[in-house]
Amino acid sequence: MRDVAVIGIGLTKFGELWDRSFRELGIEAGLEAIEDSGIAGKDIGALYIGNMSAGRLIAQEHIAPMVSEQVGLTLGNIPATRVEAASASGGLAFRQGFIDVASGLHDIVVVGGAEKMSDVGPEVITETLASGADQEWEAFFGATIPSLFAMMARRHMVEFGTTVEQLAAVAVKNHKHGSLNPKAQFQGEINMDVALKAPFVAEPLRMFDCAPVSDGAAAVVLCALERAKDYTNQPIKISGTGQATDTFALHDRKSLTTMAATKAAAARAFKMAGKKPGDIDVIEVHDSYTIAEIMAIEDLGIVDKGKGGPAVEEGLTALEGEFPVNTSGGLKARGHPHGATGVAQVVEIVAQLKGIADKRQVKDAKVGLTHNIGGTGGTAVVHILEAV
Amino acid sequence: MRDVAVIGIGLTKFGELWDRSFRELGIEAGLEAIEDSGIAGKDIGALYIGNMSAGRLIAQEHIAPMVSEQVGLTLGNIPATRVEAASASGGLAFRQGFIDVASGLHDIVVVGGAEKMSDVGPEVITETLASGADQEWEAFFGATIPSLFAMMARRHMVEFGTTVEQLAAVAVKNHKHGSLNPKAQFQGEINMDVALKAPFVAEPLRMFDCAPVSDGAAAVVLCALERAKDYTNQPIKISGTGQATDTFALHDRKSLTTMAATKAAAARAFKMAGKKPGDIDVIEVHDSYTIAEIMAIEDLGIVDKGKGGPAVEEGLTALEGEFPVNTSGGLKARGHPHGATGVAQVVEIVAQLKGIADKRQVKDAKVGLTHNIGGTGGTAVVHILEAV
Repeated sequence: MRDVAVIGIGLTKFGELWDRSFRELGIEAGLEAIEDSGIAGKDIGALYIGNMSAGRLIAQEHIAPMVSEQVGLTLGNIPATRVEAASASGGLAFRQGFIDVASGLHDIVVVGGAEKMSDVGPEVITETLASGADQEWEAFFGATIPSLFAMMARRHMVEFGTTVEQLAAVAVKNHKHGSLNPKAQFQGEINMDVALKAPFVAEPLRMFDCAPVSDGAAAVVLCALERAKDYTNQPIKISGTGQATDTFALHDRKSLTTMAATKAAAARAFKMAGKKPGDIDVIEVHDSYTIAEIMAIEDLGIVDKGKGGPAVEEGLTALEGEFPVNTSGGLKARGHPHGATGVAQVVEIVAQLKGIADKRQVKDAKVGLTHNIGGTGGTAVVHILEAV
Repeated sequence: MRDVAVIGIGLTKFGELWDRSFRELGIEAGLEAIEDSGIAGKDIGALYIGNMSAGRLIAQEHIAPMVSEQVGLTLGNIPATRVEAASASGGLAFRQGFIDVASGLHDIVVVGGAEKMSDVGPEVITETLASGADQEWEAFFGATIPSLFAMMARRHMVEFGTTVEQLAAVAVKNHKHGSLNPKAQFQGEINMDVALKAPFVAEPLRMFDCAPVSDGAAAVVLCALERAKDYTNQPIKISGTGQATDTFALHDRKSLTTMAATKAAAARAFKMAGKKPGDIDVIEVHDSYTIAEIMAIEDLGIVDKGKGGPAVEEGLTALEGEFPVNTSGGLKARGHPHGATGVAQVVEIVAQLKGIADKRQVKDAKVGLTHNIGGTGGTAVVHILEAV
């Protein structure tokens, strides 16, 4: 397999973007990434798009050729492929783009991720998100994604003494990071008091424990590393990729407090990259719920199992901490347009490794990691990137 | 890139399978392919699933880890990825499986395709299929997939003198082929009179000009060619793959009678395989409508543009003809569970090249081709397979 690098990034503002369509968002992110990379349209070999549920949310399946046309690539009839794995759709599209270039099939590939979630009402959103869980054994009986994560949070509290204050500390940290990111959906900081008094979504998870409903798109340009220097002085190498599955329904898991898919995906990515958790300078994890960030840093091996809550409380994962987590604001504050999220995580890590993350720059960041999960962890995908 | 072979195939019966769920169909096809290949579950590196719209049809996104669990692969936490491109979803999943093995990432990959379409009523089906066309510029204004293909048929008649009898001849041929395929949805032959007197779906297309609504699943096992002989004496090599896009909406095309995506995808696949149209012994094309088969054999270069209708009438594409097309019965008679179709095409070609196609066996078939399109041709994917 050939080495592959990211040579361009693009990202729309995330938010409830009432005045913008799915297409417009895709075009903006795609063109920004293409321009950032310095490639021409004719250089592009293929397009991969991560999207969870345009079929349900905007009545549009088959979005990859639509996006291809909108960004002006019809002339070359380039292959365009949509990849879906609920909220991990973006991460998986990025991985398929990596595999494509690594295989030698194409030298340059564009990977995009997009979701337009604000065009439908709360019931449709809740049902659509729940279609990422097990419809026959969970959603049909009324389980929603927040309620399933609430069960994980409860169990984490029982097993490890995790507190609601520790959950809230994740939200406070990520909103602080988001306030430093002009593309983030939420630009304001919150304090513990606000987080702890917000209404319940699914006990013990309150409003600020949950990522918002968002519109947005992200894109990156991938290039065979051997050709990357033709386009940029700062190619960011994809050193490791790992993807894994776990049982689809939560009730089939051995443990509610560990995501086996995250552990397996991380082990594969670390092995491929020849790295260990201690080597990572900056991390974007899937904090769709505050408990998810705590479990993620444990399952990725950043801290021991059960120590995720205290780690956040002690500032280990803050911007100025030893292992800065979700410097972008994370899903929590940057926003969570499902198909875009996994690609947006890569955009943030690339910005950090290139030293262009402005007010939220992690000093001397050389190696970064992204972690994206689908549903309640039926899918997990981990990538390790490094400056070369 | 490494050479890749198909070493196992599995296929459910296609039809309106009221008593079977999406999961059951996926399990049957997947396990049949795994058993056929002689591999063990632990040998499988990854799973790719083609599916168009489980989100709309069975309220279930994120199906890849669900299928992975159902076929018993959770223990290995293997990566499982869904690929979508409307009715080309299966063909694209097959291609992603090929790229994965060719890259060297995994030695053995299972590719499945599945769709469960009969659980919803005709309105939901029509709207869901139309979500594979351009929602904002076509479907919103009332265009359906059959009506868009009807326009192509009309224009083909104007430009090349194609007749309704030639369209009907495609249906008669494919129903005859289907009658020889025990897995086909329709087991009975039809004659010209029946085809020409059937009610209109979208003039000039009558009922027998249109593929049915179907449930079904298909699966294949892919293996690095260098390791294929460990499992089978008859590996079928994937010699060429080509994928392409065209404008998403029909009204943006230069021509309504040529699918640019088919031409581009075919050119790529032929180039990779080092073959030309005349080298192909057996062909599965995307006959979602009879006009689509006529356009496909023209755009693939089997006959000259405008000669597709006469070619069918003259028997060129019949089982005993020079270029047998859709020996399985095609989408028309085998049935068209959208996500399964592209994989089912590969299953048929592999059976033909292995000489196990029974009553519909093409004599001395050595090289085969599959052609799968999404929507009205916004996506096309072509594969060339050969006995080695």
